[in-house]
Amino acid sequence: MESLHVETIAVLTSGGDAPGMNPCIRAVVRTALSKSLRVIGVREGYTGLVQGDMQNLQARDVGGILQAGGTVLGTSRCMEFLEKKGQREAIRNIHEAGIDAMVVIGGDGSMRGARVLAEEGIQVVGLPGSIDNDMWGTNMSIGTDTAMNTIQDAIDKLRDTASSHRRAFVVETMGRNCGYLAVMAGLVAGAEMVLIPEEDVSVEEVAAAVEASYIRGKTHAIIIVAEGASIRATTLTEKLNQMDVGFKTRVTILGHIQRGGRPSAFDRLLATRLGVAAVEHILDGATDVMLGLDGRLIVPVQLAEVVAKTRQANLDYYEMCRMLAH
Amino acid sequence: MESLHVETIAVLTSGGDAPGMNPCIRAVVRTALSKSLRVIGVREGYTGLVQGDMQNLQARDVGGILQAGGTVLGTSRCMEFLEKKGQREAIRNIHEAGIDAMVVIGGDGSMRGARVLAEEGIQVVGLPGSIDNDMWGTNMSIGTDTAMNTIQDAIDKLRDTASSHRRAFVVETMGRNCGYLAVMAGLVAGAEMVLIPEEDVSVEEVAAAVEASYIRGKTHAIIIVAEGASIRATTLTEKLNQMDVGFKTRVTILGHIQRGGRPSAFDRLLATRLGVAAVEHILDGATDVMLGLDGRLIVPVQLAEVVAKTRQANLDYYEMCRMLAH
Amino acid sequence: MESLHVETIAVLTSGGDAPGMNPCIRAVVRTALSKSLRVIGVREGYTGLVQGDMQNLQARDVGGILQAGGTVLGTSRCMEFLEKKGQREAIRNIHEAGIDAMVVIGGDGSMRGARVLAEEGIQVVGLPGSIDNDMWGTNMSIGTDTAMNTIQDAIDKLRDTASSHRRAFVVETMGRNCGYLAVMAGLVAGAEMVLIPEEDVSVEEVAAAVEASYIRGKTHAIIIVAEGASIRATTLTEKLNQMDVGFKTRVTILGHIQRGGRPSAFDRLLATRLGVAAVEHILDGATDVMLGLDGRLIVPVQLAEVVAKTRQANLDYYEMCRMLAH
Amino acid sequence: MESLHVETIAVLTSGGDAPGMNPCIRAVVRTALSKSLRVIGVREGYTGLVQGDMQNLQARDVGGILQAGGTVLGTSRCMEFLEKKGQREAIRNIHEAGIDAMVVIGGDGSMRGARVLAEEGIQVVGLPGSIDNDMWGTNMSIGTDTAMNTIQDAIDKLRDTASSHRRAFVVETMGRNCGYLAVMAGLVAGAEMVLIPEEDVSVEEVAAAVEASYIRGKTHAIIIVAEGASIRATTLTEKLNQMDVGFKTRVTILGHIQRGGRPSAFDRLLATRLGVAAVEHILDGATDVMLGLDGRLIVPVQLAEVVAKTRQANLDYYEMCRMLAH
Repeated sequence: MESLHVETIAVLTSGGDAPGMNPCIRAVVRTALSKSLRVIGVREGYTGLVQGDMQNLQARDVGGILQAGGTVLGTSRCMEFLEKKGQREAIRNIHEAGIDAMVVIGGDGSMRGARVLAEEGIQVVGLPGSIDNDMWGTNMSIGTDTAMNTIQDAIDKLRDTASSHRRAFVVETMGRNCGYLAVMAGLVAGAEMVLIPEEDVSVEEVAAAVEASYIRGKTHAIIIVAEGASIRATTLTEKLNQMDVGFKTRVTILGHIQRGGRPSAFDRLLATRLGVAAVEHILDGATDVMLGLDGRLIVPVQLAEVVAKTRQANLDYYEMCRMLAH
Repeated sequence: MESLHVETIAVLTSGGDAPGMNPCIRAVVRTALSKSLRVIGVREGYTGLVQGDMQNLQARDVGGILQAGGTVLGTSRCMEFLEKKGQREAIRNIHEAGIDAMVVIGGDGSMRGARVLAEEGIQVVGLPGSIDNDMWGTNMSIGTDTAMNTIQDAIDKLRDTASSHRRAFVVETMGRNCGYLAVMAGLVAGAEMVLIPEEDVSVEEVAAAVEASYIRGKTHAIIIVAEGASIRATTLTEKLNQMDVGFKTRVTILGHIQRGGRPSAFDRLLATRLGVAAVEHILDGATDVMLGLDGRLIVPVQLAEVVAKTRQANLDYYEMCRMLAH
Repeated sequence: MESLHVETIAVLTSGGDAPGMNPCIRAVVRTALSKSLRVIGVREGYTGLVQGDMQNLQARDVGGILQAGGTVLGTSRCMEFLEKKGQREAIRNIHEAGIDAMVVIGGDGSMRGARVLAEEGIQVVGLPGSIDNDMWGTNMSIGTDTAMNTIQDAIDKLRDTASSHRRAFVVETMGRNCGYLAVMAGLVAGAEMVLIPEEDVSVEEVAAAVEASYIRGKTHAIIIVAEGASIRATTLTEKLNQMDVGFKTRVTILGHIQRGGRPSAFDRLLATRLGVAAVEHILDGATDVMLGLDGRLIVPVQLAEVVAKTRQANLDYYEMCRMLAH
Repeated sequence: MESLHVETIAVLTSGGDAPGMNPCIRAVVRTALSKSLRVIGVREGYTGLVQGDMQNLQARDVGGILQAGGTVLGTSRCMEFLEKKGQREAIRNIHEAGIDAMVVIGGDGSMRGARVLAEEGIQVVGLPGSIDNDMWGTNMSIGTDTAMNTIQDAIDKLRDTASSHRRAFVVETMGRNCGYLAVMAGLVAGAEMVLIPEEDVSVEEVAAAVEASYIRGKTHAIIIVAEGASIRATTLTEKLNQMDVGFKTRVTILGHIQRGGRPSAFDRLLATRLGVAAVEHILDGATDVMLGLDGRLIVPVQLAEVVAKTRQANLDYYEMCRMLAH
């Protein structure tokens, strides 16, 4: 592929924001500038493409953002871009701004958008940003490690009070389609049981697990419930309190706290490596791919494959979590 | 009052646990030992008194607990002690163990229990432990500062994602009878509006405030709802999402996270000062009092006064919060 | 005093930066705007006054700074302002900008500067910002609580490794003239010994204390050394390692880490209250005063008194720390 | 290899402690118990083997340690085990305690000790624990991720104050033989320059880099110096302050803070996976190997290879860091 003519690249963040998007933007911008490219930042994801809301970025524009949560470019879930009309506007704006190649940072939906651009002949490289870690084609997405640490800290706090005052706690984590966060949180924070979209569990099974903990003499029980599990956390808590399981049960809904916070060292490193690699791959002519982490390496995966497949929680870890709770 | 005969003191933590109870226990134990007293730790609050569950404490038993959340003595809300029969058992166990004076760390209900002991002729000094800061007789209770920092950190994280992705967030804090935590959180974390038990606010007023923020061009709105407010956080969120207020609204229920965590510097200092002072006051013959923070000083307040009055949120701060949100 | 004519106030931060200066600036700006005043921000302390480097501030300019460490206005230790010539330029710039009154946030040196302005007839209110808490006229300065928590977290980490691997640790904290931070850190983080400017201690005494801990069977010893103590931390560490005190000794120099970090809840609240009160006091005609925290109240103190006196560490706490280490 | 006869395994932690050793011990113990093995904990590394200081461990003994820094088994650098006499005692104690296989968690030196055991016919599996990440045979060692986050947080704090008050900061990190931590900290926290054992840099080069930052208009400069670099951090700071580089320079020596703190989510997960795998490999007959992380997989490497080779910092990241600082 011929791409020696790349002079201007644009970068956008799209979908749910994830901690680490800022270090990723910084890496894209500074790497591109070090190679004498012009860099354009698109505001609020595909919305900025459709509406032509973009600006030149200099090295200084990304100073001091390495440690900032969220994304300085803003993000959105753009409805217009799902339709032909919006896509046409976007392509027109890309050409008008003289953009030769695009870097798109975001989740599954964002990669679907990137595919649309590629099909219209735009050179595009995607980067995985998602706290849920539900994307095909990468071991870890930008933001997942920070979210894991946030959940872990919250559960560590619950255990302080639990060990003083015998209680069961139900904690709702994000994860509408994928139980990754919930299962891993169970492993690193120590849960009696984890409820995820991938596995059906009845209230009776949960009640039995909590009661078993009580009988074994544990001072508390932690149940983690992914947002997409068959029972919601509040409902489960009410039902447990109607049954006699030994402990009284309380609920915590972490909500969007899981999206925030300064990016962890792992996320800053992953985001930085991906951002640098995106520019290098663009200069090497790559397009219609997402870059992912494969072991220690950054490798390209076809966007078609990324959007066709979904990643699920590893059920080996699900079992490991239960074994270690005993 | 004659008290030169104090040779043995006991300490217990009761009611909802609060970060800082451990440094307080440590200060009581080490101060008492430095004055050649014997110290007894009572397990799980008044339950331990009723059941005679206690043990001698040495300097080493409170090593390494300065930084630990919760309470190593355990705590409970003891039903038996509310009745004459339980109280009789408790008094009997106090005498049998040779306890000359008691230190009771806890909230309003715990001070009511301390009054019972005082009325039965036991020398007792109470110390305020409550994350809600709803106790009469002290500017600050043990645990409130840590809880404030926990809430603040959570809202800081929400603002990261809010500023990237225009949203309103409803955050439920503790505070069944007292809006202190909610109002102060509003001030230090920056909320558009705070709903507390002390003030009635309608859903329409909240909706108007959120919409006004949207119109002023703010990228987000934060609404803090104390547990005891007239509307619950989840209900408010549902109603806001049914109305058109500009932003989409999401809910976070912090729950017992607010009770956990390593005690902050302020709480360790307050807890330590109170613990040291409790032993000194006991040796000076004080009884039937709670020690509180009055400005910079630790001063005794009659238990009768503490349990008769309730502290409410300062509405000046409530107004200050609204003024500063603009 | 006649001050109904105040229409424009200016705010500056000066001297060593302290966490909480940003919430203080925010409170000054938003309170002033709510009273229909014009607000000017002066850049880099007195340097900005001397050089006329200032700008109008709107409500939005202080959005999102509540949680930020440092000061968005910048700060400096300004040499020119120590001389007549620089002062003359500053006064001239104040008049030229139409400034009716000034809010100066900073430490001792900054209050000396504020006195100069007052003597030249400028209405000025000072606010105490100093992590060292060495200022006369206030119980707590903006930034001290955050610094205390930073030091505490660092020592908590040292104890983790100390309890696994028998060692003594020497930790150097800030405090050139005042041992407040070191003594309080000793209390809240649990130190065997604290070395401060106010008290002379010999290496032999430290060695004896460390050895005594070793003999008592403690797994570690923590020695806190204020910057201004008669022995420096590195020297002390070398000497201890040349002697036989049971433990091997390692040094940590916290340095400017103590100035950074997001302001704690206490500092945000103190800074906010002081900022609001500064504007109110200005409108009431106050000048040549610093506002300080006296118990729960914000009260004015004459600048002449503030700069004439110095606050020292409370030696009662120094003794309390030693007693509790046993 | 025949190993169906494994009934009792022992676990020890040795060398410098690392956050995550506790979750690793927990995983070894609970996995072994779930397979009906007996588990013995050896105190203070090889010292406990030589002196026969060990105890049976039950599921409850490792409750509540998932989130604790350090190692509950204690650790040491054991001199006696370097000599034949000590080794003989250790082997004798292993046989006397009926230990069939050993899990050794630690760094390079600890793996050398494990080799000795293997040569004497003891079944042994090593696990990498080292904050320096200087071990051959694994992508990441237990403790490195937590240490990285600790360093990152410290530098984030320095930048707060730096951006308010123009300064250069020199930060000393651990890393006597390996610049991994320093280079990665440079990438994730944003340093102008990194000094590591693997690369010689002169004071003049550092001065030039700092001055260049000053001239480019940066408000601060961060220089990270690994403990084993050719210049020490304090010396470098003194020299920079004697030269005219635009900024004044201050030093921070992080010291053992880097070893402490609650283990991060990454470290808890890695430690847990390694602990589970160690027991499984032992039951499969593996010996004389260390288990390491290779991409996503846990794989065995011969101990002979692990101790023969040393890992160095990746110089690609060293260059990436410099490129991104501009």
